[in-house]
Amino acid sequence: MILHVESDADADVLDLREAIEREGLRTRAVRTSRSEAVIRCIGDTSVIAEIVSTRTGVRVLDGDCPYPLVAAHPGQSRTAVRLGSSGVSVGGESLAVIAGPCSVENRRQIVDTAVGLREAGAHALRGGAYKPRTSPYPFQGLEEEGLELLAEARRVTGLPVVTEVMDTRLVGLVAESADVLQVGARNMQNYPLLDEVGRVQRPVLLKRGPSATVEETLLAAERIVLQGNADVVLCERGIRTYETATRNTLDVSAIAVLRERSHLPVVVDPSHAAGRRSLVPTLALAGVAAGADGVIVEVHVSPDDAITDANQALSLDDFAALMPRIDRVGRAVGRPLLTRAPCVGGAA
Amino acid sequence: MILHVESDADADVLDLREAIEREGLRTRAVRTSRSEAVIRCIGDTSVIAEIVSTRTGVRVLDGDCPYPLVAAHPGQSRTAVRLGSSGVSVGGESLAVIAGPCSVENRRQIVDTAVGLREAGAHALRGGAYKPRTSPYPFQGLEEEGLELLAEARRVTGLPVVTEVMDTRLVGLVAESADVLQVGARNMQNYPLLDEVGRVQRPVLLKRGPSATVEETLLAAERIVLQGNADVVLCERGIRTYETATRNTLDVSAIAVLRERSHLPVVVDPSHAAGRRSLVPTLALAGVAAGADGVIVEVHVSPDDAITDANQALSLDDFAALMPRIDRVGRAVGRPLLTRAPCVGGAA
Amino acid sequence: MILHVESDADADVLDLREAIEREGLRTRAVRTSRSEAVIRCIGDTSVIAEIVSTRTGVRVLDGDCPYPLVAAHPGQSRTAVRLGSSGVSVGGESLAVIAGPCSVENRRQIVDTAVGLREAGAHALRGGAYKPRTSPYPFQGLEEEGLELLAEARRVTGLPVVTEVMDTRLVGLVAESADVLQVGARNMQNYPLLDEVGRVQRPVLLKRGPSATVEETLLAAERIVLQGNADVVLCERGIRTYETATRNTLDVSAIAVLRERSHLPVVVDPSHAAGRRSLVPTLALAGVAAGADGVIVEVHVSPDDAITDANQALSLDDFAALMPRIDRVGRAVGRPLLTRAPCVGGAA
Amino acid sequence: MILHVESDADADVLDLREAIEREGLRTRAVRTSRSEAVIRCIGDTSVIAEIVSTRTGVRVLDGDCPYPLVAAHPGQSRTAVRLGSSGVSVGGESLAVIAGPCSVENRRQIVDTAVGLREAGAHALRGGAYKPRTSPYPFQGLEEEGLELLAEARRVTGLPVVTEVMDTRLVGLVAESADVLQVGARNMQNYPLLDEVGRVQRPVLLKRGPSATVEETLLAAERIVLQGNADVVLCERGIRTYETATRNTLDVSAIAVLRERSHLPVVVDPSHAAGRRSLVPTLALAGVAAGADGVIVEVHVSPDDAITDANQALSLDDFAALMPRIDRVGRAVGRPLLTRAPCVGGAA
Repeated sequence: MILHVESDADADVLDLREAIEREGLRTRAVRTSRSEAVIRCIGDTSVIAEIVSTRTGVRVLDGDCPYPLVAAHPGQSRTAVRLGSSGVSVGGESLAVIAGPCSVENRRQIVDTAVGLREAGAHALRGGAYKPRTSPYPFQGLEEEGLELLAEARRVTGLPVVTEVMDTRLVGLVAESADVLQVGARNMQNYPLLDEVGRVQRPVLLKRGPSATVEETLLAAERIVLQGNADVVLCERGIRTYETATRNTLDVSAIAVLRERSHLPVVVDPSHAAGRRSLVPTLALAGVAAGADGVIVEVHVSPDDAITDANQALSLDDFAALMPRIDRVGRAVGRPLLTRAPCVGGAA
Repeated sequence: MILHVESDADADVLDLREAIEREGLRTRAVRTSRSEAVIRCIGDTSVIAEIVSTRTGVRVLDGDCPYPLVAAHPGQSRTAVRLGSSGVSVGGESLAVIAGPCSVENRRQIVDTAVGLREAGAHALRGGAYKPRTSPYPFQGLEEEGLELLAEARRVTGLPVVTEVMDTRLVGLVAESADVLQVGARNMQNYPLLDEVGRVQRPVLLKRGPSATVEETLLAAERIVLQGNADVVLCERGIRTYETATRNTLDVSAIAVLRERSHLPVVVDPSHAAGRRSLVPTLALAGVAAGADGVIVEVHVSPDDAITDANQALSLDDFAALMPRIDRVGRAVGRPLLTRAPCVGGAA
Repeated sequence: MILHVESDADADVLDLREAIEREGLRTRAVRTSRSEAVIRCIGDTSVIAEIVSTRTGVRVLDGDCPYPLVAAHPGQSRTAVRLGSSGVSVGGESLAVIAGPCSVENRRQIVDTAVGLREAGAHALRGGAYKPRTSPYPFQGLEEEGLELLAEARRVTGLPVVTEVMDTRLVGLVAESADVLQVGARNMQNYPLLDEVGRVQRPVLLKRGPSATVEETLLAAERIVLQGNADVVLCERGIRTYETATRNTLDVSAIAVLRERSHLPVVVDPSHAAGRRSLVPTLALAGVAAGADGVIVEVHVSPDDAITDANQALSLDDFAALMPRIDRVGRAVGRPLLTRAPCVGGAA
Repeated sequence: MILHVESDADADVLDLREAIEREGLRTRAVRTSRSEAVIRCIGDTSVIAEIVSTRTGVRVLDGDCPYPLVAAHPGQSRTAVRLGSSGVSVGGESLAVIAGPCSVENRRQIVDTAVGLREAGAHALRGGAYKPRTSPYPFQGLEEEGLELLAEARRVTGLPVVTEVMDTRLVGLVAESADVLQVGARNMQNYPLLDEVGRVQRPVLLKRGPSATVEETLLAAERIVLQGNADVVLCERGIRTYETATRNTLDVSAIAVLRERSHLPVVVDPSHAAGRRSLVPTLALAGVAAGADGVIVEVHVSPDDAITDANQALSLDDFAALMPRIDRVGRAVGRPLLTRAPCVGGAA
């Protein structure tokens, strides 16, 4: 059984736990926001109702919902996740666009791409320093050096940085350097990793696994939030089906269903769904029309030279042409592109 | 080998066939439009090039393309398919909306639905008289009576009628009564049926099979066109995947890929993809943003009483609310809703 | 509501129908075997129980089961389907093997293959006269000539003939000539075709569709039986999944599940599942170990020259080597290979 | 480029690396067995051929094969992986059976199960101490205590222990305690984990991911071997498809394809494929007929009380009845059940 406690005082939470443990149950608590905490009660929960009834701000979370923390509740507002100190939020009234190369390759590549993206209106920079590659032989990312180059691109442009972390042992290091931690599709059910990113103070971009259901995706998000990190952005990036005309099959319905069931924001990744450049803009628009809160898209200063995912990277020109189209479709569904806030520490 | 002949004179086609057959090949010809014909040559085709070189308006269709008749060719304009004598086209500069109940149930249901749809701006009426039901036990459609009721709804509203035909032996009957013949998803690879609808003078709405690839869908269309019926509208209605949150997984990428590869128009069916009402409008918009030339959607005058597919039918109010949203997203991608042409023979 | 009547007298059935119709219901009856019939009652069925209670040999079929006619019932024996007048049954205590080329190509090919198969111990001959081809351009089968050649191969070898029928209008013609009508995977939900093969006195080999569920497969069989033809053999031939290492994914579990839920026999088609020769024997054995009542496998007198499915056809030597392996695995699971009955009208 | 060096002298490997690095390339080397090592060369590899030509026992691995270390090579013998010090091998001429509960629950449960399994002829004990659960709320395993209980079950029975490890930080701890490290299906592409289990001296049981292709599975194995651990056992456990009649779709073809392409042993897990008890024995037999080198199956001393996967656990009686059936099918395909070697340190 899960209790939700509205209080910013840790003493309140402790007091409630002691009351429950006196009845022979075990408890575990996490603070899910400054003013909220969650207590899990393990044991004979028949005594809980009475304990709760005497306290204000305490309620039992819906026992039938498998993911009570991330579930949408009637009347509750949607969550907006702020990306670093940039003032950019995903999940508000406007659409956010995260863009950048698949891999960080060298200083010039990442900085030039970031500068071009900033000029075209992107809100955040993505780029992989640690790359999950199906084969162990090719380029696996610049690793720590990649993190440093991303940090430099942020200094130059002011764009917050989104980058993937795969290894529990590196979560701290990546969190020091990046604004948003990405959990990749292959790791959506890597539970130690979910627990670890749940314990740091950095937003998490959680990609749906290639054969994960909507429910499994929400349960993965629940695991992160249950560790105390409420800033989770979900990402639909295509699922694995029999169809080979595209790299993956973009499941736009999942965007709508995730938003029906959960208060968390959802972004669409048209690049990994499409697998080739010509389809990326169209899929980005379809995702926005389906209700996505934002777009995460691969863009490279020189796409044909990209070491990884060259086929699906947009050029900076392609990207600049896409942005007003996103804005138009966004406005048609009541979500214009976010007007970028003034940079924090950026050069632009 | 396939030859394309530009000529409205059957004598030209006959003459060419005779020239080829004199070289020991067999031929088969079909007229694919008033001014075009196609000749298949079977046998040793090494002699064809010379024969063709001496004639104008004859060319060898791309031998590498598995579906030369429906393939998009550079510079070629897209096909617009006119629905009956209504003046409504699918595949032009505007979006067409086909709407109606899953099944025709009785006079009042179909006429009231059609009147409501016409008022809300629909361009054509759909409704099933012959219903492909997974089980042999429940309602299988009103059959011939259903065709008559559809014809009556057309008389009242002027809306052209789209209805499914499953049985080769009924193609003639259905074609007499309906404006557009629908080949359902379960029959996308029913080749005798494709051949039969290829031989009548009625547009065909061809639904993608639940596990058909884009390529198989185009080959099914090719088969229809090869019989002489060039008026084929493709329909994406969701594919079968592991995901159970929706009835099928709407493959919006397929809309984009079909339009890349073929000159035929493509409509989106959000109803069978979603399987439940609340998702239908969102999926319609996603399909339009992905480039669909139109929408085919289930609407019922009293959805909760629908005998079939009750969960996914929109009410007339839902539909009326959806139309301006389709128009807005359509305009955002350069395709506003079709302004309805004056009715032909309709009461409105 | 479905009533099951044990009686060989049509008068009994008629009498019962009249009793029910006097209460205002409509009925429809089919004889599902010499001594059994089924009556569907449409209307207010609350009166049925009383009518039934006064008659012997009449019972209400399980209303919760979506496919009452093909469902396995506790204590009921499994159905064995006799292939023509050959004395060969599928579904008895032994395993039957149906083999032959994908397509009938010419007299020599089909007769030589059949003779070789007979020598190696096959129990029936398969071969396509009407070929469902994804593309309309290549060879579509010898059609009527193919039927005649199959009949000749039967005269020479005594092997009963299994061949596909796709067109409702050809069911009569094919049934005159062949011993078993095959409904191919693409047509598993072609309901007019199922109805038509349900009305002839020929066993039906019903292939599971490439994305059909076990339940849908049983409902397709139910439709055939409901028309009066109880001799249905189910066939698992692989389903469509994301995996491309094989042509389809052989779902051996489906064999087990079909046998749990239904009394109908089930055969395994390893050829279309594998898509290449080297895997076919292994998949045949896996199917037998999973409980299949028989195997249907593609064999060609000269596989590399096969016009269709050349990659997956076994040679006669491959087939001769496979038969004792099938027998060994069959014996290990209590189902040895069928010892062939003396030929009827054959030369051997 | 990958070089294979046959030598047990590290000095030989070092010498070769220095020769290559003098030409300006970077190298990385791992010892993949006592007498073999692999060197990766990064940079301009055009000079390698000459260097290699002057040395014996050095060859360039097939550059076209994406997984040169695990690929089957003509004439090469298959790999047999020894499970701990028990004398039990997977991949030899006989079949090995690994059995046990999904989760270790308490001392009595695991020891009683292990004793029963040993009596029925099992070759190794499986049991989860760290459980990957889709939801964060239910039981997640006894963790370290579970490892201790497994060690006790081994002391009592002599059966080697197979248990899952999910967290890179726990690989050392689990490797101290267990004989075989299992990488679960959800973690098949958790690359830091694959690297980590590649660095310890314990065999690895690598489960195919629920939507992993055969090729991706082999690339995951390649990654482990490339770190120096050649003792990898592959496991087919069913893939995710549209079919819901079983928990997963057992892909028996994958067993055959994995064995065609790789020299590594392959076991079948019928329990996670079936998802319910009644199908497990049949699927085990199908896997053996398809060529599996062994079976890993869930068995519980009291299945209905199992905390996890209760539906699919066999009872000890079920298991005892299954073993001779496995033996019979195994013998039919030339692979009898392994006769158990004398226990090492066990009580039996």
